[in-house]
Amino acid sequence: MASWLMDPIKPVSDEAAKAARRRLDKLTKPKGSLGVLEELLVRLAAMQDSDLPSVDPARIVVFAGDHGIVKEGVSAYPQSVTLEMVRNFCQGGAAITVMARQLGVPIEVVDVGVMENPGALPGLISARAGSGTLNILTDPAMNPDQFDVAARAGKAAVDRAVGEGTKLFIGGEMGIGNTTAAASVVCALLGPPPESVAGPGTGLDVEGVTHKADVIQKILLRHLDMTNTPQGVMRRMGGFEMTALMGAYIRCGQVGIPVLVDGMIASACALVAATIHPPLKSWLIFSHRSAEPGQYPVFKALDAQPVLQLDMRLGEGSGAAAALPILRLACALQREMATFEEAGVSEKGSDVPDRAEVSEA
Amino acid sequence: MASWLMDPIKPVSDEAAKAARRRLDKLTKPKGSLGVLEELLVRLAAMQDSDLPSVDPARIVVFAGDHGIVKEGVSAYPQSVTLEMVRNFCQGGAAITVMARQLGVPIEVVDVGVMENPGALPGLISARAGSGTLNILTDPAMNPDQFDVAARAGKAAVDRAVGEGTKLFIGGEMGIGNTTAAASVVCALLGPPPESVAGPGTGLDVEGVTHKADVIQKILLRHLDMTNTPQGVMRRMGGFEMTALMGAYIRCGQVGIPVLVDGMIASACALVAATIHPPLKSWLIFSHRSAEPGQYPVFKALDAQPVLQLDMRLGEGSGAAAALPILRLACALQREMATFEEAGVSEKGSDVPDRAEVSEA
Repeated sequence: MASWLMDPIKPVSDEAAKAARRRLDKLTKPKGSLGVLEELLVRLAAMQDSDLPSVDPARIVVFAGDHGIVKEGVSAYPQSVTLEMVRNFCQGGAAITVMARQLGVPIEVVDVGVMENPGALPGLISARAGSGTLNILTDPAMNPDQFDVAARAGKAAVDRAVGEGTKLFIGGEMGIGNTTAAASVVCALLGPPPESVAGPGTGLDVEGVTHKADVIQKILLRHLDMTNTPQGVMRRMGGFEMTALMGAYIRCGQVGIPVLVDGMIASACALVAATIHPPLKSWLIFSHRSAEPGQYPVFKALDAQPVLQLDMRLGEGSGAAAALPILRLACALQREMATFEEAGVSEKGSDVPDRAEVSEA
Repeated sequence: MASWLMDPIKPVSDEAAKAARRRLDKLTKPKGSLGVLEELLVRLAAMQDSDLPSVDPARIVVFAGDHGIVKEGVSAYPQSVTLEMVRNFCQGGAAITVMARQLGVPIEVVDVGVMENPGALPGLISARAGSGTLNILTDPAMNPDQFDVAARAGKAAVDRAVGEGTKLFIGGEMGIGNTTAAASVVCALLGPPPESVAGPGTGLDVEGVTHKADVIQKILLRHLDMTNTPQGVMRRMGGFEMTALMGAYIRCGQVGIPVLVDGMIASACALVAATIHPPLKSWLIFSHRSAEPGQYPVFKALDAQPVLQLDMRLGEGSGAAAALPILRLACALQREMATFEEAGVSEKGSDVPDRAEVSEA
């Protein structure tokens, strides 16, 4: 196991959170009336140790890898789509690349182990741990060396982000078959029955979802008693791109960059990361409630409230990208709104009529 | 009653909606996986009669007016705050002005009847229907001439927006006391009991909310049998800024500009507008579920699903502004994503393993 993985998570600042709350309460609005935007602002303040946090520049990194489990007919799309979508990311035609452009956020694609090597593509980083994982129905997804390489791919992406002054990290994933891997990881760590976490993924029908739940059940039995650590669960049942996301989240907590977590797969990776390092929870903002049911046990376990509920189920980091403007608005409001004193606005309760003296209608 | 108010609402295009759906289904993502973003895109396509709709340039107009009902102690803030906030809007220190700047959207403030005339301020349009409404516990809010002036203030704002090529209209409001007026309007039109629609507004305590529900009950009794039309309900129980919002929404439907509706007050105004003109419903996108309970019966009556659930309760158009980036992303995705064919990505079901032949674990 790579030793860096166990380096401690940076503590967040309660003092900065309190200072941010004090400023929020002086701004020309009823206290708390910006709702979730205020809660997000206070959390960002604690992470960045500043009552005026900022999420720009943000950065999007999409990790891609293939999954041996697709042999079992758990996906509506063929395995070749992982590679085809990597090309699509690099050509700018995929959802997350369009969103990155629209939001003005740089995007990086990391090949952590697509079945066939994509070769050189614009914006693609090669950090291959293998040519797809093994079939987790019969074998561990990867060996310990591959696990280290994949986790380091996540660390390296965050270290590059630090070099660019990144204030907010968005990780995405691409890997046909990875809802099955992620659901297996969630079941192994939290224990919900497979039928409660198996979802349509890229578009399975009811029969397909039942089959997927059956496959997950068999995966859990296959690895029973060999998954005593969260790292072990990820290595045996996860994927290269998932291990990289886990590594990236842990690295963000170590170096102190707030994380905007995407949907179901990303949440499963965040769960592994936060099980290894419980204090990492303070660095994770869950961006959206996906249409995939496997995410719910993670929210429950980490006591997390997603920012958006838009029934998205695309992955790639797209749900996190959709939530970025909300964080930007929260930061702008704290930075630029006038206080009651500055604007000469009367405060609550001043010179209000006595409600005991109500007119008779 | 102004005759323009009854001019017909422009029909939306089912053909454009279908064309937009066809294009969405060809883009490199599982069908429907962008969730609410796809639903919003299809609705915008129907409104703009184009499979590639756009929400830019958008425009924010905040209407301000005072309410005689504040004499009854229904607000946590004094009436003077309406004027003070108008100044704050024009100085750029209020939440909605900060958000407009952050989003790059022009903002206009319209005085439809603040108690004291604010005089000339940068970005302020004067369209005064009076110096605050009368106390609706004892009198109709306004006379028919004032109703016409206020509604025309909304129409004029939209007509100015048309002149600027506006593709999306966001209306906001400022008026201390207007949650009581809006809740009364909702009760009069839809019949829920006052205690189910009275909320904390700018920050009432439990006792204050109970008092407010009691005041709303008395308002309803006072105007009983004199509010047979939605216009009559608005004139007797609404506000100048609310009447302007109603007029603006109707005008948007007449000229064909999509509307992003804000929170509780705006939803009450949209309800009046859509009760006058049922086809207007197709032009209204409800941006967020406010923390004010008075909005729920409106969603139910108009079968509306809000985009965001962020517990905001600020008004000013702030919830609608928070939802604008979601619409922008939806439009960008439709415009810029590659199709399966363009990107050379395999489609669903092609070359997928047979799920009958599952390996034995």
